[in-house]
Amino acid sequence: MAKQPQNAISPTRSENYPEWYQQVVKAADLAENSDVRGCMVIKPWGFAIWENIQRRLDAMFKATGHENAYFPLFIPMSFLEKEAQHVEGFAKECAVVTHHRLEPDGKGGLRPAPSAQLEEPLIVRPTSEMIIGATFARWVQSYRDLPILINQWANVVRWELRTRLFLRTAEFLWQEGHTVHATDAEALEETMRMLDVYADFAEHTMAMPVIKGEKTAGERFPGAVSTFAIEALMQDRKALQAGTSHFLGQNFARAQNIKFQDENGQEVFGWTTSWGVSTRLVGGLIMTHGDDDGLVLPPKLAPAHVVIMPIFRSENEKAEVLPYCAKLEHELASQTYAGEPIRVRIDNRDIRGGEKKWQWVKRGVPLRVEVGPRDVAAGKVSLGRRDQAGRFEPTRPEFVANIAKTLDEIQHALLARALKLREESTVRIDNLREFEAFFTPKNAEQPEIHGGLAYSHFVESPEMDEKLKALKVTIRCIPLGGDDEPGKCVFTGQPNNRRGVFAKAY
Amino acid sequence: MAKQPQNAISPTRSENYPEWYQQVVKAADLAENSDVRGCMVIKPWGFAIWENIQRRLDAMFKATGHENAYFPLFIPMSFLEKEAQHVEGFAKECAVVTHHRLEPDGKGGLRPAPSAQLEEPLIVRPTSEMIIGATFARWVQSYRDLPILINQWANVVRWELRTRLFLRTAEFLWQEGHTVHATDAEALEETMRMLDVYADFAEHTMAMPVIKGEKTAGERFPGAVSTFAIEALMQDRKALQAGTSHFLGQNFARAQNIKFQDENGQEVFGWTTSWGVSTRLVGGLIMTHGDDDGLVLPPKLAPAHVVIMPIFRSENEKAEVLPYCAKLEHELASQTYAGEPIRVRIDNRDIRGGEKKWQWVKRGVPLRVEVGPRDVAAGKVSLGRRDQAGRFEPTRPEFVANIAKTLDEIQHALLARALKLREESTVRIDNLREFEAFFTPKNAEQPEIHGGLAYSHFVESPEMDEKLKALKVTIRCIPLGGDDEPGKCVFTGQPNNRRGVFAKAY
Repeated sequence: MAKQPQNAISPTRSENYPEWYQQVVKAADLAENSDVRGCMVIKPWGFAIWENIQRRLDAMFKATGHENAYFPLFIPMSFLEKEAQHVEGFAKECAVVTHHRLEPDGKGGLRPAPSAQLEEPLIVRPTSEMIIGATFARWVQSYRDLPILINQWANVVRWELRTRLFLRTAEFLWQEGHTVHATDAEALEETMRMLDVYADFAEHTMAMPVIKGEKTAGERFPGAVSTFAIEALMQDRKALQAGTSHFLGQNFARAQNIKFQDENGQEVFGWTTSWGVSTRLVGGLIMTHGDDDGLVLPPKLAPAHVVIMPIFRSENEKAEVLPYCAKLEHELASQTYAGEPIRVRIDNRDIRGGEKKWQWVKRGVPLRVEVGPRDVAAGKVSLGRRDQAGRFEPTRPEFVANIAKTLDEIQHALLARALKLREESTVRIDNLREFEAFFTPKNAEQPEIHGGLAYSHFVESPEMDEKLKALKVTIRCIPLGGDDEPGKCVFTGQPNNRRGVFAKAY
Repeated sequence: MAKQPQNAISPTRSENYPEWYQQVVKAADLAENSDVRGCMVIKPWGFAIWENIQRRLDAMFKATGHENAYFPLFIPMSFLEKEAQHVEGFAKECAVVTHHRLEPDGKGGLRPAPSAQLEEPLIVRPTSEMIIGATFARWVQSYRDLPILINQWANVVRWELRTRLFLRTAEFLWQEGHTVHATDAEALEETMRMLDVYADFAEHTMAMPVIKGEKTAGERFPGAVSTFAIEALMQDRKALQAGTSHFLGQNFARAQNIKFQDENGQEVFGWTTSWGVSTRLVGGLIMTHGDDDGLVLPPKLAPAHVVIMPIFRSENEKAEVLPYCAKLEHELASQTYAGEPIRVRIDNRDIRGGEKKWQWVKRGVPLRVEVGPRDVAAGKVSLGRRDQAGRFEPTRPEFVANIAKTLDEIQHALLARALKLREESTVRIDNLREFEAFFTPKNAEQPEIHGGLAYSHFVESPEMDEKLKALKVTIRCIPLGGDDEPGKCVFTGQPNNRRGVFAKAY
């Protein structure tokens, strides 16, 4: 029998971080590449995590007054011509539908039927501002119709050349909020409210600490007046943009003719926002909490909180162990954690115990319970926690009574661990040499893991862009809530009074 | 002030049934046509109904052992070449993606970039057997991997020429189940299990009675060994196919190479099924229960069970009425119906009371409560039921205590009413003259409403097809569970021992 390797995932994070990521996705059965370039298949375990993300976010959207709706997959090409202010410089990677029928090609195959060419090509939505805006223009007549607070859960397509499961795929799943308001103040308030919802969700549901900040002009969503984002730090010290909230001013309302009669009978343009998060969050989850044994799931998002593995070697033992497990399952399922019933699975599969256990370790289940005849006799369970090494042997009633508390401990432990890494990886840097050193790999054997978050003064300039490009560093955001602090741009020496957060990024 | 018209919807069902349908969709704020040909916008009230359908069906799928997953939107053209057994006769209306970039066309507009033509065109999925099957071929190695029980909630596109909101649109939302089994018996069992799930859902959640039956060879899903469906009767006496479940035998497994090692080490093909329902169900809901005042919602699917409308004419009255309404809302929301909390809305909008009331009537809310100062003084509510005329005046405690019972009464009343119509519209016909007369409009002023369900003996033949085509009648299914009964085909006189159900249909 092969000895259990020291770690379930090979390579480890420090050996080869990008490859570790791929191996965790595979070992945890989250997703795989499909037969279609750049498109992924999200497998049941991965999709169940996404369903949990959806359900909890959806409740937060509804609690803040939003309703779901659904808009077309396709956008007429002319809508993009309207949007692209300078069509001449425009080039957009997207999926273009040009025909509406296949026909035999006369050589035993098929071809797009020349007789079925569309008069106007359609684009598969990369985002829906244009098509939803055109709809809103019909819905909004009077100030009484405002605000309009809509969310859509949908698939979108962006023709990406280099793809990576969850982090960057040609097709991905997301939600996109789109709202119209009577005043700029209300629209800006909405923009910040949804940024707060995202930050709250990231920290308290995903256990992933984030920095809320505003994007610089160069990083703004095209057409937005201002773009806000939440930025998280992954374990390789790279940043991940995990969600964005855009204040669009009246720019899109003008392009799409979203007008209304205000209280004085004047016809004015609406003020719009949009905001979104995607299946990229699953990538963030993996890289925030995963370890060298695979995925580690925060309990609030785990498809199973507890997996029970019965152990027996005879029919007699089976007759003792299975009813005990069934009773335990029932007792657990009638408890709740974070407002939801405890999710329990009994794994009765006829495979080796070690293999079974390691499957659930790799899949990141917070609690694993093994129950053999000795546990039954003692009225105990043998408990493994995904966030800690070692085994525990609580009595069954203790375990059941403390289940919510135990899960909450794990939830908090994961957040604390991630916060600690972020603190250790955050520096204030005030000169270029230090900045360059910070973002240069020190260890040739671990080239992927270095750097972190550098808080530095800056003034946007071509010189800064050039230096950042050479270092493969980007400015992530200007953090909200920071105090003004006089200083000098580390790239040019120009005076400036706010620090930005710089990092290598996904 | 304009007098309230006798009916909220014009035309009425008997005046012009197809136009009545469009007007209900509009008046109930369910959906509208978009700027993209054949694609609809599902508005919040319509989408909330779909979300309720999804949530309840999803729970039924999970309770029968299925897991959700997600597969690519696109299908490579070569996959369809494999499937189309006779490519020469193949013509498929679908959205064909041929390019992956737009660029300036030199005339101030955009065009698909000639340099970005795809080597192989991609089809936007009209259904996912091919792409999911290719994935399953990788997942299935051994009999231990079986069964595979997967469901997907997704958008699909079929290039329809004549579209109608919910009933037939180019893009629609649906779920598609796809399963693989080790034996034909298990696959057939699955096919029937999901047909039963659909029938159960239609009758007990949608309050829409359905006939379970098998499709004839001519009506089968291409490639299926047998197709089963649930068929419902709409109020214009036309049938609506509301869901299908296909036993695919080994046909798709062979085309997609889904093979496994059985317990004897033999490599054999799997047995597959697929099954689906779509946003078409919302169309069925409208046409089963709607009346000349608009939508009528079965409580189990209503986005709001109860709408509370406070009525006051002064600040003093407002100070009495609003707290009473808030208390009522709270009391109701802590009750449950059919396993879910009562869904209550308070409508505080500052619009005319009559207009407000009729909006909720047209939207089909089961219970409308008006609360004015007199109701507060008497400790009562003024209650309107969507399934009955008249008003009721229960005390607040009575109303709250009976809320689940009242909703269940409405749920059952809707089913009973629909069953009654179906019984009245169902005939057994044994000769062609009667058959033709049954399907010929009697009343020139109501040409749309006639016919119903005819149970007749038949033997499939070109003669039958021709006669049915002339009458615009189709065979819906061969009902399950019927007894053999000797008879003669009404079209040809050939002997036969099972009746089929014939109807005009959507």
